[in-house]
Amino acid sequence: MPTRPHSGRAAEPAVPLTDAEVAALDAHWRAANYLAVGQIYLLSNPLLAVPLEPEHIKPRLLGHWGTSPGLNLVHTHLNRVIKARGLDALCVWGPGHGGPAVVANSWLEGSYSEVYPDVSRDAEGMERLFRQFSFPGGVPSHVAPETPGSIHEGGELGYSLAHAYGAAFDNPGLLVACVVGDGEAETGPLATSWHSNKFLDPVHDGAVLPILHLNGYKIANPTVLARLPEEELDRLLRGYGHEPLYVAGDDPAQVHRALAAAMDRALDHIATAQRVAREDGVPDRPHWPVIVLRTPKGWTGPAEVDGLPVAGTWRSHQVPLPGVRDDPEHLRQLEAWLRSYRPEELFDADGRPRPEVLEHVPEGDRRLGATPHANGGLLTRSLPLPPLEHYAVPVGKPGTSLHEPTRVLGGLLAQVMADTAGSRNFRVAGPDETASNRLDALYAATAKAWQAEVLDTDEHLAHDGRVLEVLSEHLCQGWMEGYHLTGRHGLFSCYEAFVHLVDSMVNQHIKWLRTSRALSWRRPVPSLNYLLTSHVWRQDHNGFSHQDPGFVDHVLNKSPEVVRVYLPPDANTLLSVTDHVLRSRDYVNVIVAGKQPCFDWLGMDEARAHCARGAGVWEWAGTETGDRPPDVVLGCAGDVPTQEALAAAGLLRRHLPELAVRLVNVVDMTRLLPREDHPHGMTDAEYDALFTTDRPVVFAYHGYPWLIHRLAYRRTGHPHLHVRGYKEEGTTTTPFDMVVRNDLDRYRLVMDVIDRVPGLGVRAVAVRQAMADARTRHHAWIREHGTDLPEVADWTWPGA
Amino acid sequence: MPTRPHSGRAAEPAVPLTDAEVAALDAHWRAANYLAVGQIYLLSNPLLAVPLEPEHIKPRLLGHWGTSPGLNLVHTHLNRVIKARGLDALCVWGPGHGGPAVVANSWLEGSYSEVYPDVSRDAEGMERLFRQFSFPGGVPSHVAPETPGSIHEGGELGYSLAHAYGAAFDNPGLLVACVVGDGEAETGPLATSWHSNKFLDPVHDGAVLPILHLNGYKIANPTVLARLPEEELDRLLRGYGHEPLYVAGDDPAQVHRALAAAMDRALDHIATAQRVAREDGVPDRPHWPVIVLRTPKGWTGPAEVDGLPVAGTWRSHQVPLPGVRDDPEHLRQLEAWLRSYRPEELFDADGRPRPEVLEHVPEGDRRLGATPHANGGLLTRSLPLPPLEHYAVPVGKPGTSLHEPTRVLGGLLAQVMADTAGSRNFRVAGPDETASNRLDALYAATAKAWQAEVLDTDEHLAHDGRVLEVLSEHLCQGWMEGYHLTGRHGLFSCYEAFVHLVDSMVNQHIKWLRTSRALSWRRPVPSLNYLLTSHVWRQDHNGFSHQDPGFVDHVLNKSPEVVRVYLPPDANTLLSVTDHVLRSRDYVNVIVAGKQPCFDWLGMDEARAHCARGAGVWEWAGTETGDRPPDVVLGCAGDVPTQEALAAAGLLRRHLPELAVRLVNVVDMTRLLPREDHPHGMTDAEYDALFTTDRPVVFAYHGYPWLIHRLAYRRTGHPHLHVRGYKEEGTTTTPFDMVVRNDLDRYRLVMDVIDRVPGLGVRAVAVRQAMADARTRHHAWIREHGTDLPEVADWTWPGA
Repeated sequence: MPTRPHSGRAAEPAVPLTDAEVAALDAHWRAANYLAVGQIYLLSNPLLAVPLEPEHIKPRLLGHWGTSPGLNLVHTHLNRVIKARGLDALCVWGPGHGGPAVVANSWLEGSYSEVYPDVSRDAEGMERLFRQFSFPGGVPSHVAPETPGSIHEGGELGYSLAHAYGAAFDNPGLLVACVVGDGEAETGPLATSWHSNKFLDPVHDGAVLPILHLNGYKIANPTVLARLPEEELDRLLRGYGHEPLYVAGDDPAQVHRALAAAMDRALDHIATAQRVAREDGVPDRPHWPVIVLRTPKGWTGPAEVDGLPVAGTWRSHQVPLPGVRDDPEHLRQLEAWLRSYRPEELFDADGRPRPEVLEHVPEGDRRLGATPHANGGLLTRSLPLPPLEHYAVPVGKPGTSLHEPTRVLGGLLAQVMADTAGSRNFRVAGPDETASNRLDALYAATAKAWQAEVLDTDEHLAHDGRVLEVLSEHLCQGWMEGYHLTGRHGLFSCYEAFVHLVDSMVNQHIKWLRTSRALSWRRPVPSLNYLLTSHVWRQDHNGFSHQDPGFVDHVLNKSPEVVRVYLPPDANTLLSVTDHVLRSRDYVNVIVAGKQPCFDWLGMDEARAHCARGAGVWEWAGTETGDRPPDVVLGCAGDVPTQEALAAAGLLRRHLPELAVRLVNVVDMTRLLPREDHPHGMTDAEYDALFTTDRPVVFAYHGYPWLIHRLAYRRTGHPHLHVRGYKEEGTTTTPFDMVVRNDLDRYRLVMDVIDRVPGLGVRAVAVRQAMADARTRHHAWIREHGTDLPEVADWTWPGA
Repeated sequence: MPTRPHSGRAAEPAVPLTDAEVAALDAHWRAANYLAVGQIYLLSNPLLAVPLEPEHIKPRLLGHWGTSPGLNLVHTHLNRVIKARGLDALCVWGPGHGGPAVVANSWLEGSYSEVYPDVSRDAEGMERLFRQFSFPGGVPSHVAPETPGSIHEGGELGYSLAHAYGAAFDNPGLLVACVVGDGEAETGPLATSWHSNKFLDPVHDGAVLPILHLNGYKIANPTVLARLPEEELDRLLRGYGHEPLYVAGDDPAQVHRALAAAMDRALDHIATAQRVAREDGVPDRPHWPVIVLRTPKGWTGPAEVDGLPVAGTWRSHQVPLPGVRDDPEHLRQLEAWLRSYRPEELFDADGRPRPEVLEHVPEGDRRLGATPHANGGLLTRSLPLPPLEHYAVPVGKPGTSLHEPTRVLGGLLAQVMADTAGSRNFRVAGPDETASNRLDALYAATAKAWQAEVLDTDEHLAHDGRVLEVLSEHLCQGWMEGYHLTGRHGLFSCYEAFVHLVDSMVNQHIKWLRTSRALSWRRPVPSLNYLLTSHVWRQDHNGFSHQDPGFVDHVLNKSPEVVRVYLPPDANTLLSVTDHVLRSRDYVNVIVAGKQPCFDWLGMDEARAHCARGAGVWEWAGTETGDRPPDVVLGCAGDVPTQEALAAAGLLRRHLPELAVRLVNVVDMTRLLPREDHPHGMTDAEYDALFTTDRPVVFAYHGYPWLIHRLAYRRTGHPHLHVRGYKEEGTTTTPFDMVVRNDLDRYRLVMDVIDRVPGLGVRAVAVRQAMADARTRHHAWIREHGTDLPEVADWTWPGA
């Protein structure tokens, strides 16, 4: 077996295990391995009461064996130290595609049967446990929401360590162990996650103990880290700021002793570091331990299958013996493999684990499958949210004063931050953009977390800061996911274009929440909240690379139970929406709002009412009279489109006063969906009442215009819907030039109205020409001056 | 200024620079700095011929100064070594938001004026150079396609080093320098990019010289790497497999000498490593050099503004003096700043750079702004593509034989790989999935690139392999982008769900290609080709986490000039589509095709004709007769939906033989768009001829069903369009259960037809009930057996 022992600084036993302890740990490990193999293969005959026959085997053999023995080993040893030291611990299983392993351990410790009583801790339950795995209607093959004790899906790979740090933030009493697979260690998000230790406060945060599992292989290849020269790997881990402890081998007894010793040393090291920081007040960043565990992939599984080496190679990644139902030799090998764990020593005749197997298993909530931190809703305390009136901007006449919405929001967030100084259950994260996004009022209440060197010229950096800033959207997202899933609150503010960096992560988080919501034992956790600002229309410093409004499209493809999207058009609506999302549970909330000065449209009461409706008529902006239906509806969603729609409404009011215009603003994008497609969706009656069934609707939207069609295509009035939005005409230019380039400007909207309302007559032709002329004037002006037309720059809402 | 000199292994002068050399390099650096500042601030008076007045200043001050002096310094010194050593070099500017720096250097060396003759290398051109920067209609503020010599946009950050390695692969004579900003170094993609050196063959690939620029700050924060203890950073870089060379300081003369020495050492080191590998045949992976350059952010800019420190802090990130037009003190500071470079020593009275400034600038194509490697189309050689008939599967009766499409494709790719053994201009990349995706025929022609340790049990690993496998979609994407933009060909095969990991990267690449296409001097480069397989419908081993067909939605939001999406329904159509994309230029081509056994529908000739049309009627599958329009159209796109649609057509043919059914298969998704929205879009006449204007269309689609509505909403027949697809009902289950859960199965499609075709009568009611019963039977069967109904598992196309 090609596992190399590691000659580096191996862990030496602090207090060596007794032979009895080794035997008990080994029995637990064998039991877990047996149960993992059973889940992959067996339909029945779970205790091998009779010789194995093809009919005992599942018709479809699925799952991942290769990583399972390593996960079982780590779980076995975590049990020991948790029990021995009375730890409050959580484990993040990076190679969580080894689902059978973590499920096996939960079943052994009893937490599984507590959550799923029909999968009882006996022979009958064991048969159910085996049958359900990767079986239609059963449980997934990965560690997943269905798995007790888990906050991390092991499918996509790369986020384990970021999740672990997120769980550890503001949990000073918690140990978060994290198994990092050497496959996932190749991913970008994992590679930068090692630097999370520069953001972990040894006083106010818990500890993260990474366990880098070098089993050496991915699906089809060796892993980079497992094939580095030893001294190079050692330097790398020390360069990440860790103190490595090495455990390597393929002799179980020796590995049990070495791993126990490494865990003891690591936990002693952590305890000392926390004591030094908390009691002695030493502010230096500790060199936290990392355990490097080098054991064979598929260890204890078949050494050779059909003449090819399997254990200790990539061939054990999934199902090492694929032909068990048809090939008698494979069946024989499987039976030998299962019996090699000596199940009769591990389970009694009723299939219950024998006491020795459970000797080192902790009790109650200390069991890894039962920790409330992995079912964070159990621990969630609501945020103290102050009255919005304290932060609201006064609005007399709409559209005449300007505020930066995110700056206004900053005041509210600062108060929440101040009011959670004791509970420490609120964080704001962002990729180096909290101040750029004008949320810097926060720094009156807390600092940015920073455990590296601080210079005299620095501002707002502190060990105990609760703003998380790092130039990695992946880390921000991963940390916040870990923080939320362990029951705490937060807001992730991000440049709109670059939130696509975490498209895939938010997918996985939405899937997690969607699945969790269907599990009665999982309690709702605080929502994951995005504030997307520095948006597509205002990239004055940057241009095309920073222009992309497509994240809304991305999330609206996902589970409607989970996804909410808000486009507040001004400061007070942003306050209202944010207040709402910070109270919500189990959602992914996306707020898109600008940081640049924006007209105030609604007073706080109106804002609250408008946001509660999610979409509504702004009567003061329209020219409807009496009961006559409008001639045209101007729809808008988003701050910049709302401004252009209002400006268009003002132009129509002046130039075509007889035209009955209705202005509809949409804050909650999912209102546009049919009710049967989204819980926030409008009924047809509601939609028709707003947009009519037969009048032209000219809709100014913040993002890709076809999104509105995708949301509204089933409405009766859809054939009359005309949408303007961003159509990839980006560049470094002025704000107004951006809307002109994308045909979203006020002049174009007026032309769109004139083109669509029948029978407007000759005066409208002249108005249309005036609008076209204004666009031409704009083009000439900007070429010459590099600025926007004065009539645009100085515009305010003309009022009634 | 808080820059710390570094006490680590500083570079010592090999052959020290003479004072004259220092003076010349410093003159070049000052000239570049002057031009960078000028671009940010000046509208006119470029040579400061008269005292600076507010009217000389741009109305909007935009851009990024902070990183510019560092980029200028590196460019100045790269010039020297390129000229002195006759190097063929390319530089990737990671902090490319410092656009004015790279543009300044290109203008100085003359390459800018060659591409943009009106921006001539004289006073008039200098004024244009200044004015156009970040000016509407001018050039972007970042390094961008418009910038000569660039293959990398500096906006999103994180991909510089991956791009550099991509450029270096199979370019043995090329030196790729890569400036890595300490901000971008915090991103995940960059953090894992350091390990790219495990994939770089010193014999067949060029060299990458990373220059880690620690200017210490991002927009608002210090950077992690700049604040590590020195020994920790040193260990980290050595752990990445590099030999670090340190240059630090804020005294220009000292830094010039130290940087020159470091570059000489690094290049000597590289030359030795390549010689040892190429001539002595030593296969060990070299410890390639990395230069660590620690200089102040905003170096040479204002030390203090309004009483706050600026140079050497994050405050110099963008525009250090923001109030120049209104604040006389700011204006005075700007003039002093500009004059501190002594422009009169650098430019003659006509604004031409003086000879001393250009002393170390290389000539012709060796100039960094003129290297053909950065305009890769100049170097592109077409791939030798064999006749598809050699790989085509024979198809007698459609839908009766099965092949794994990607395995069939593997044969074609292997031949291309074999036929490019000499030219080495073709690569296949994938995140550990080439074999899993059944392209392993490739290994007959080449191996997987691997420079780390190899064990006896390993297979298909070699130093000179041209398959790139690493468990990082970011690296695969970044490498392929660098490879394509330098003129070579490739295919990136990826799990469909996880390609979302690179959503943001593909955005940026599409933007790059879109902009490049509009620049006459940029020559078309080979397209970036995705093969998305292991798709949503066949995740038997994994389940919900691996199910996401949304990448197609994502890319279809982007520039239609660039984006192409193909869903070949079988093996021969996959061959045809792949052949097409490998011949194409300047596109992003997305192919979605399964790896599981799939019915063969079309012979090679039919496949080729069908793919050329992009969408068409499969007459053999329908029941239309004569000129009568069909009663219903069954549309389909994607391999699994095509199978279900055909099965539905078979059921209709059997149970309702009088119904005139037309089957339309769509391969090229953009055919569904209106012609005015996409160059491949169908005219209304074409669309109507296929789908009719008034008959019900039941469309079975591979991904999210609303995408089809988003593409087709403007068609006359849209109200009659009914789409089935993936609606997030994922789990670990059988293939057929997946389609049933998402209402995409044959029985549901037949029910949809019956529900939509009027006047079918009582017989249809019975058929509908039979279909519903079949679904019920499925549910019961799968609960019991965990497999699909035999009638489904054994199904083949019944034929006419």
